[in-house]
Order: sequence, then structure tokens, then C-alpha cells
Amino acid sequence: MSKQLTHEEAEALVTSDDPEHPANLISELCREFYKLGWVTGTGGGISIRQGEHVYLAPSGVQKERIKPEHIFVLPFAQSSVPKPGSKRDFLRIPSKKGLSESQCTPLFWNAFTMRSAGACIHTHSQHAVMLTLLHPRDAQSFKISHQEMIKGVRIGGVGKTLSFFNTLEIPIIDNTAVEEDLTESMAAAMEKYPDAPAILVRRHGVYVWGNTWEQAKTQSECLDYLFEIAVKMLLAKLPLVGDN
Amino acid sequence: MSKQLTHEEAEALVTSDDPEHPANLISELCREFYKLGWVTGTGGGISIRQGEHVYLAPSGVQKERIKPEHIFVLPFAQSSVPKPGSKRDFLRIPSKKGLSESQCTPLFWNAFTMRSAGACIHTHSQHAVMLTLLHPRDAQSFKISHQEMIKGVRIGGVGKTLSFFNTLEIPIIDNTAVEEDLTESMAAAMEKYPDAPAILVRRHGVYVWGNTWEQAKTQSECLDYLFEIAVKMLLAKLPLVGDN
Amino acid sequence: MSKQLTHEEAEALVTSDDPEHPANLISELCREFYKLGWVTGTGGGISIRQGEHVYLAPSGVQKERIKPEHIFVLPFAQSSVPKPGSKRDFLRIPSKKGLSESQCTPLFWNAFTMRSAGACIHTHSQHAVMLTLLHPRDAQSFKISHQEMIKGVRIGGVGKTLSFFNTLEIPIIDNTAVEEDLTESMAAAMEKYPDAPAILVRRHGVYVWGNTWEQAKTQSECLDYLFEIAVKMLLAKLPLVGDN
Amino acid sequence: MSKQLTHEEAEALVTSDDPEHPANLISELCREFYKLGWVTGTGGGISIRQGEHVYLAPSGVQKERIKPEHIFVLPFAQSSVPKPGSKRDFLRIPSKKGLSESQCTPLFWNAFTMRSAGACIHTHSQHAVMLTLLHPRDAQSFKISHQEMIKGVRIGGVGKTLSFFNTLEIPIIDNTAVEEDLTESMAAAMEKYPDAPAILVRRHGVYVWGNTWEQAKTQSECLDYLFEIAVKMLLAKLPLVGDN
Repeated sequence: MSKQLTHEEAEALVTSDDPEHPANLISELCREFYKLGWVTGTGGGISIRQGEHVYLAPSGVQKERIKPEHIFVLPFAQSSVPKPGSKRDFLRIPSKKGLSESQCTPLFWNAFTMRSAGACIHTHSQHAVMLTLLHPRDAQSFKISHQEMIKGVRIGGVGKTLSFFNTLEIPIIDNTAVEEDLTESMAAAMEKYPDAPAILVRRHGVYVWGNTWEQAKTQSECLDYLFEIAVKMLLAKLPLVGDN
Repeated sequence: MSKQLTHEEAEALVTSDDPEHPANLISELCREFYKLGWVTGTGGGISIRQGEHVYLAPSGVQKERIKPEHIFVLPFAQSSVPKPGSKRDFLRIPSKKGLSESQCTPLFWNAFTMRSAGACIHTHSQHAVMLTLLHPRDAQSFKISHQEMIKGVRIGGVGKTLSFFNTLEIPIIDNTAVEEDLTESMAAAMEKYPDAPAILVRRHGVYVWGNTWEQAKTQSECLDYLFEIAVKMLLAKLPLVGDN
Repeated sequence: MSKQLTHEEAEALVTSDDPEHPANLISELCREFYKLGWVTGTGGGISIRQGEHVYLAPSGVQKERIKPEHIFVLPFAQSSVPKPGSKRDFLRIPSKKGLSESQCTPLFWNAFTMRSAGACIHTHSQHAVMLTLLHPRDAQSFKISHQEMIKGVRIGGVGKTLSFFNTLEIPIIDNTAVEEDLTESMAAAMEKYPDAPAILVRRHGVYVWGNTWEQAKTQSECLDYLFEIAVKMLLAKLPLVGDN
Repeated sequence: MSKQLTHEEAEALVTSDDPEHPANLISELCREFYKLGWVTGTGGGISIRQGEHVYLAPSGVQKERIKPEHIFVLPFAQSSVPKPGSKRDFLRIPSKKGLSESQCTPLFWNAFTMRSAGACIHTHSQHAVMLTLLHPRDAQSFKISHQEMIKGVRIGGVGKTLSFFNTLEIPIIDNTAVEEDLTESMAAAMEKYPDAPAILVRRHGVYVWGNTWEQAKTQSECLDYLFEIAVKMLLAKLPLVGDN
């Protein structure tokens, strides 16, 4: 259980003039992601971990209208690992009524604990979803090679960048009725594919992480580009792997 | 017949510093909808009902250039239900010459009276129109399942949210020469499909409603996403229902 | 030959705080059209006629960076009708070096003289160009019916609005090496198709006009929407005319 | 080796109130190119040569967030021509830690030295990449004719503009693991195709140049338009050359 902060201490956690403060960044980046079609209809979002603090957007709200005062702050060291339905420790809860923390919380935590990520982005990009739909029902992963944009992606999302000649592989897991229930299958896929920089969720979207918010964001852009061009290639009957 | 307001009382109905005042919101949201391609060429729009007041944009104007002073305000309790060509009671009529209330007025009223909706959005989104064109001429409805974005849609537009495993069904009605003449067939479809959160109009667009403007807007986004991906799936010969 | 204005009188023609002054509008609308992909690479533009004054953007410049001081003003009553290569009368020429009036000048004049238009828009929209490419080489026109957006288009561009059940027909003319050389074939098509609200130019784009800049703009949006959906329908092998 | 500047002299090279100063322009244009999808995921960029000074963005950063103080300034007259891995002379290096000059430096130099270009733009546009993917593996170039947008492109990128009836030809070279290693094959293609205004790189993107930043930008727009419509034409099985 984390120590109790005073109201002033808690508010200070999300109050800053610095545009790169996590509470400001999450609000700004969600507006940008909305324009990209990644977080429409309240879906998707981003969580940033800065040292021992984790910053989270609320669940089920218009992501492009989030303000810093709507941000939740959690201690990274929780009294128990966040699991579906588990109680969580908070440092700061927004005063606006009816807000609860993102349903992606345990999924973001997968990235923080299993990859030491500093940020994790979840999108409902149609490119990601169409890509999973164009794969056979029993496909375990998506593979692509010989694309310049592969060079913007890091091994495991946090290691060295891939080379043009590497084959990028991203596991595809099945969707569940409740977002939190993806926690275990996402963790299992991250274990089975330690080099994968992201997890695709069939008929749902993608989770992408990085050492920092900048790396999580630029890798999300590179991957979304690759999902989009892969969909175009599949529809044009071009092979995704190899340099034909 | 509603009571007569003084000029000052009437102007106060659309004058506010609060960005979430309906007169300000309609102006802002129409600009946003324009960017999404929902209301180009003067088409489409949004009406908000707040308690006993209904706020309406004018007909046939550039929706992205509406200002709060262009907004009509009507009493929700009309001396007679708005029907095609019927006389309407007003609380406030814009002073700018040549403006008349949205031709969608009786259609918005369907949502307010039959679903107790707090807002109703009408778009000419090409995704909606292409979807109706890709359905057989005699199709009565559009169905889709196993999509994460279905979870952002409420039963009947105002009830509980749907589950990932539910099949979303939206009736498709035929278009008419005059917008108001859709009133009865829209009402009939809403009665026949009480769980439907929207009505598609062949070769025209869609009507979407919600308890609040936020819910009407986020449901419009979820549905537009589903219309878009359904069009892509149909063109790629993927089934819309089931998890193949 | 028009009367000579003093420098102050000439500058006053393009200097105004009113955002709806033609010199301000042309600059703003070109920025908007750039975002729509209508005037990239210096192509396309808009001319506004206000009473006896015609406002024109320069030729071959980045349309999204035009400022009011770059605008040409011509008397509508020219000593001779503007033709390809003809000398023109000016009321105001921008002082910035190297600017010449839009090469579309005689084409805009077609709309002003033959339809009494108050504004004419030229775009290189890919939807317009793809539509001409998907028509047989000897097709004289594009036809579409049973689309709600047809209702936003006026007969001849300046008359009554079309009905949902009307068939919209727009002539397609061949492109020429020099833009001005389209003048005669555009005029001939406008004579042969008096009800047409626009002229499509094969492998080039479209000219659209209206009584006012608002009508020219909203009709451009309706037509561009129809060009886009017609391309999608042709690629999906759906008939453009009829309600199948 | 260039003369050593004082810190004040060096900072003055990137500090200006003039929005058209190269350090300001590069920042602004990269934001614009990001919106066009040309430089997402840190890829792509622009270099401007103004007389004896060359302005470069940093490598591997979010291009839409570049500020003037992040810009490198190099003397155009280098002690040795920039080659892959070579040491370069600088006039100004940003103080922010971890920045290095764009990996495209020797490629930009090809445009400056072989075409006397004043600016060179590199994009990862999907239209460029898809176009290379839709060409046979052994295709040496892309050709297109009879498109109005060809008229916005100059012979060799810096000469007279092409005519509607000219065939535009752009060489396609193979990608390499390291961006700098494209230097020689790009130079060889520029020699073999002296009239080409750009170089396409298979599975990577395009390099476009011009006499000035304005010409480089408007030609990039015209070419990107042509790449996009060429992809659509190929998918619709329309021939790229000729006027069928």
C-alpha cells in the first residue's frame, strides 16, 4: 500500500507548465492520436511510467478531450501486481465524478514489468484490425521484411533497432469480452516472442511500448505504417516477406 | 404554443462563455464533423436537447462556419409533434436573414421522443453510404459482430453497452426526395428494431443518437469506424458476422 | 481600358479587416482547399467576382501560402474578353516580383459571362481525375443519380437545386498542353450542357462555379463527394445511375 | 576545414524572426510533411542550401517536433565531399545531447553538387513505396504521361517545366541496409537519367530536389500526387503511359 499524499501533493503530480510533463503529454498525445484515427470512440490511449510513477488516462472518455486534471497517478510499486479486477494503489485520483482508470491498466503493466518500458500505447487503428482480419484464423503472428520503416522498430520494443534485412514478427492474440482479460494471453505472447515490439489483438487493435514516450510513439508510427502497407500488399497479392 | 420570450431572454439562450453550452458545442462539433467528412456541402449536423430546450443548426448552410448566434432554440414540448411541413414553436430564431431550422428537425425529434435521447447526429459519411450500396437492394439491415468497437455502442443507443460477442444490427431505410419525409419510415424502423442505436438511410447517410452529446458523438465515431471496416471487409470478401 | 487607380486606391482593393472580403477569402479558402488535396503543387484555385471587380490568385505559386497582398484585381468589364494570350485590364497588380495572374483567368471568365457566376473554383482533386480515367476514352460526360449529395448541386450551377431523383450530368472535355487553351472547349461544353454545374477535364481536374463563393464552395464539396463515391462504385462494379 | 565560429556567431546562424529563414522553415515544413504522412516515425526530412550554408535536421528524431535550435549548419564547401561514414565540417552543432546530423547528408549533397539544387526533400510516402512494390523486381524506372500534374515538375528537377505531353521518367534504385550507402547508386542513377527530377528507392521512399525550397516542396507534392494516382491506376489495370 502506498503512502497517503495530501491533496496538495497529489494535485502537484499532474500540475506543470512543462509541456513534456506526463500529465500534459498524455493529453496532447491523445489529441494527436485521435487525428490519426487511433483512439476514436473513447478507445485506445497511452500510459507513461516515469520512475516510480505511472500516469494513466481515464476509461471510456473522449480521448481527444482529456485534460491534465483527468489523469490518474499510480505508484509503479503496487501492493499486488495489477490483474483483472484487482484493487489498485493510487497516488492521485481525479476529482471529476465518474472517472475510473483505463481498463488497459494491467496490459500497460505487462509492458512496464516484462520489458521495463517507459510508455505503452494502445490503438484501435483500422490498419492493425484489417491486418488481423486478412490473416488466416489460426495465424499466430504477422511477419514482414524488406521495408525501410522496419528500421524504426526496436528488438523487443526496447533493444537495438532492427535492420532492413531483418524480418519483423508480431504475435496476434485473440480478443476477449473484457479488455483486462487480455492480460494473461498478452503476457504469454510477450514471453513466447521476446523480440516482438508489440502485440496485435485480433479484431481489436495493437499494444506498442518503448523505453520512453518518444520511442513508444515513433514505434507506433512505424508499425502503423507497416500494418497499412501490409494490408495494401495483401490486397494486391504481394508477398510480405522477401524482396521479390 | 410556448410562451413569448423577450429579445434579451431569447438571445441569452445562445450566449455563454461555457464551451459546453449547446450553442457553442453545436458550432464546435460541426467544425469537427466537417474535418471527418461527415457534413461537407452543408449536409448533416447535430441537435442537442437540454431539458426542455432543443438546439438546432440552420438548414443548408456551411456547417463548419456556424456561429452560436445562428442557432435555433425550440421548446421540446411543442404544441404539436414536428412533422414534415408542420408549423413549429420557437423560443429563439436567429436574426440573420434567410436562415431556417434544419430539415432534419422531425427526425431529430424521433430520437428525442422515442428514445429520450439528449442529442442526435446526422452524417453523410461515405462509409455509411458505401455500406448501404454494398448491401443487396432489398436488405433490411446491416449486421456485424466480433469487433472491439461494437463495445462502444449502446443498446437502442441509450441503454447498456454491447459486448464484443453481440451482433450489432442497424436497419437500412430507403431515401426520400425531401429529408422530412423520412420521418415516418425512420420511426417505423426504430419501433421494429428497438435495440438499434442508429438508422442507416440508403444512398444518404445515418442518424445516430445518445443520452448525451458525448454519447451521441462517441457512438457516431464507433459506428462510422464499423461502417468503414465493414466496407473494407465486404470488398475483401470477408464475412461481417462470425469470427472466422 | 479601365480607369487608372492611384496606388492607394489599388491597395485599398485588397486591404480589409473583414474576413469575408474577397482578398481575405481567397487566401483562406486556398489554405482549406490545400488540406482537401485540391490545390497541391501550385495547381487549382478560386476566383471571386464581386460586382464589377474580379479577384484572382497568382499563377504557379503555393496556393496555401497566398496572402491578400498577392491578389490581382481586374475590372469585370474588360476592353476585350480575356482569351488565351490576350492582354488584360487590371485595377491592381501585386508588387511582389514575378507574379502573374492565374492561367485559369479565361476559364473563370467563362463562368462569369456564360452563367453570371459570382465565383469559380478549379481543383486537381484526384477523385475528379480518377473518375475521368475510369470513363471510356470517348465518354462525353459523367452521370450519376440517386445520391443525397446531388441535392446540394444547382441546375447549371446557379439555378434551382437538383432533386434526389434527378440524374446529374457533367461533361468531360479533353485536356490541352496550355491551361488557357481549354477556354473554347469549356465554353462549347457549357453551351451544349446548359444544366451542368461543372466541367470535368480529363487527366486534369474540374471547374465548378456558383452564384456566390459559398455556393461555389459547397457545390465543389458535393461534387467532389460524388466523384469520390462514383470512383468507389465503379471499382466495385456498381452502376452509377438507377437505384439497384 | 571551415573557419571556427564563435558560439554567438554559430547560434546566430539558426536564430531569426524571419519565418522563411532556413532553420525556421525546416522546422515548419517538417511539421507539414508529418501531416502528409511523409516523415512519420522519425523518417524523411528536408535540407536547405542557402549560398555557402547547408541546413540539416538531426537524425532519428520526431520530425514534427524539431525546433530551430536543433538544426545543424554545414559549410557547403567541405574539406572532402561527404561520403558514407566520412568526417564532416560543421559551422553549428546543436547543444542538445545525442543529436547527430541526418543520415541523408551525402544523399542531399548529391542533389546540391550534381544539380546545383537549393533544397532536397526525402519522404517515406506510402505512395512512393507502393509504386515501387507494384513495379516488377527488375524495373529500372517509373514512367507516366498525360497527367496535368506533370506540368508542375521540372526537367532534372531544376530546368524547364515538363509539358502535359511529355513522359516523366524516374529511376528506381534498390534500398540498402544503411541510408548513406545509397549515395553511389543514387549518384549513378542521376547521371544515367539527367532529366529525372527525383530518385525512387525501392521499399523505402523518394528523394526530390529543386532550385529552391519552394520548388523542391511543390515538386514533391506533384510527384507524390502522381505516385498516388499511378498506384490507383495500376490497381485498376489502367496504363500509365499514353492517353487511352
